[in-house]
Amino acid sequence: MADGTLTEVGALSLGILGGTGDQGKGLARRFALAGQRVLIGSRSAERALQAAESIGHGVTAGENAEVAAKADIVIVAVPWDGHKATLEALREPLTGKIVIDCVNPLGFDKQGAYALPVEEGSAAQQAAAVLTGSRVVAAFHHVSAVTLLDPEVSEVDLDVLVLGDDREATDTVQALASRIPGVRGIYGGRLRNAHQVEALTANIISINRRHKAHAGIRITDV
Amino acid sequence: MADGTLTEVGALSLGILGGTGDQGKGLARRFALAGQRVLIGSRSAERALQAAESIGHGVTAGENAEVAAKADIVIVAVPWDGHKATLEALREPLTGKIVIDCVNPLGFDKQGAYALPVEEGSAAQQAAAVLTGSRVVAAFHHVSAVTLLDPEVSEVDLDVLVLGDDREATDTVQALASRIPGVRGIYGGRLRNAHQVEALTANIISINRRHKAHAGIRITDV
Repeated sequence: MADGTLTEVGALSLGILGGTGDQGKGLARRFALAGQRVLIGSRSAERALQAAESIGHGVTAGENAEVAAKADIVIVAVPWDGHKATLEALREPLTGKIVIDCVNPLGFDKQGAYALPVEEGSAAQQAAAVLTGSRVVAAFHHVSAVTLLDPEVSEVDLDVLVLGDDREATDTVQALASRIPGVRGIYGGRLRNAHQVEALTANIISINRRHKAHAGIRITDV
Repeated sequence: MADGTLTEVGALSLGILGGTGDQGKGLARRFALAGQRVLIGSRSAERALQAAESIGHGVTAGENAEVAAKADIVIVAVPWDGHKATLEALREPLTGKIVIDCVNPLGFDKQGAYALPVEEGSAAQQAAAVLTGSRVVAAFHHVSAVTLLDPEVSEVDLDVLVLGDDREATDTVQALASRIPGVRGIYGGRLRNAHQVEALTANIISINRRHKAHAGIRITDV
């Protein structure tokens, strides 16, 4: 597959499962604008099509299983509730592929967001436990859907931490993330260290509430 | 006590328990350079004195209990191994004070660093459970001791996430962090969300290994 160079990554088609949610739609829009071939997947082909048409830029649509089978690389942007069951149903079409999990297992109460415990350690490790034949990478946890969908924002001020145990796969996803103008894909460690990256989204939500912002992170000195 | 303004924070004396380690010494040096009155604490008064003399800039020294009693604000920079016992022994002198926990419970093996499970959820929550009469805040987790101790670095390119449930205390610690040139103290959420901030240090270590860097984080859009 790709060796992580920008040129090759640009030629890969990108499926986004759960692509009708704000995070999925935002990523679909930015990658389509960057020239990537994007397929939005949903449990409902009709809702996937509506989302694809609302984005434009050549984005196509299908049911999750169809998109999982067709796309070269797949982003999992489904809600945490249903994450495991969705992936269990897609084991076969996702075999051999790079699967990027961007799901943040969070709970909310009157004090704001907090990290939910995950039996496997993190959503990404749960994906790896289910998709034993896939190359699971964790990335895109801290993207702001609002920013991604904002037509006024031409450059996204964000570093995307990319985690995984397969160097070629993390290199590819770093290159993919870096296709969005302003974004850098930065290696952020092994999958066993994915929990805190997912959970940090709760802190970013706290920052957003305090500052009425759409905060992201940048890594300094790299 | 302080209301979080820079002027008042500058008048407070700052104790650093475990100040003979690299992180403690680095913070002591930067705060002394910023004009803060700094007291280094250690289990051994002699080693505290050696550390204070190696830093200069008016830094004084004493045993942990003495420094805990004398200082207006206290940073806990002791090793995770011994964290709980050290704090249990200092409950009385720390009563009523802002106590800043910067301890990262990490393990290391041949694959690098990883987050250790903590019964209370995080080092900061353990501190709060032990120091029921103190105002526990979590901050300074991602500072690079190498950078703090480097005389060539005049501005530290870092945002310090400040977590806690006491608004006046977190405001004060934000103001304190911002006294180091280049640093911004940014509210990062409640103590229940401290684990992932501590654990993220494992990811930063991974980034440092990959890039031979001394990485830190910046928060965008605030």
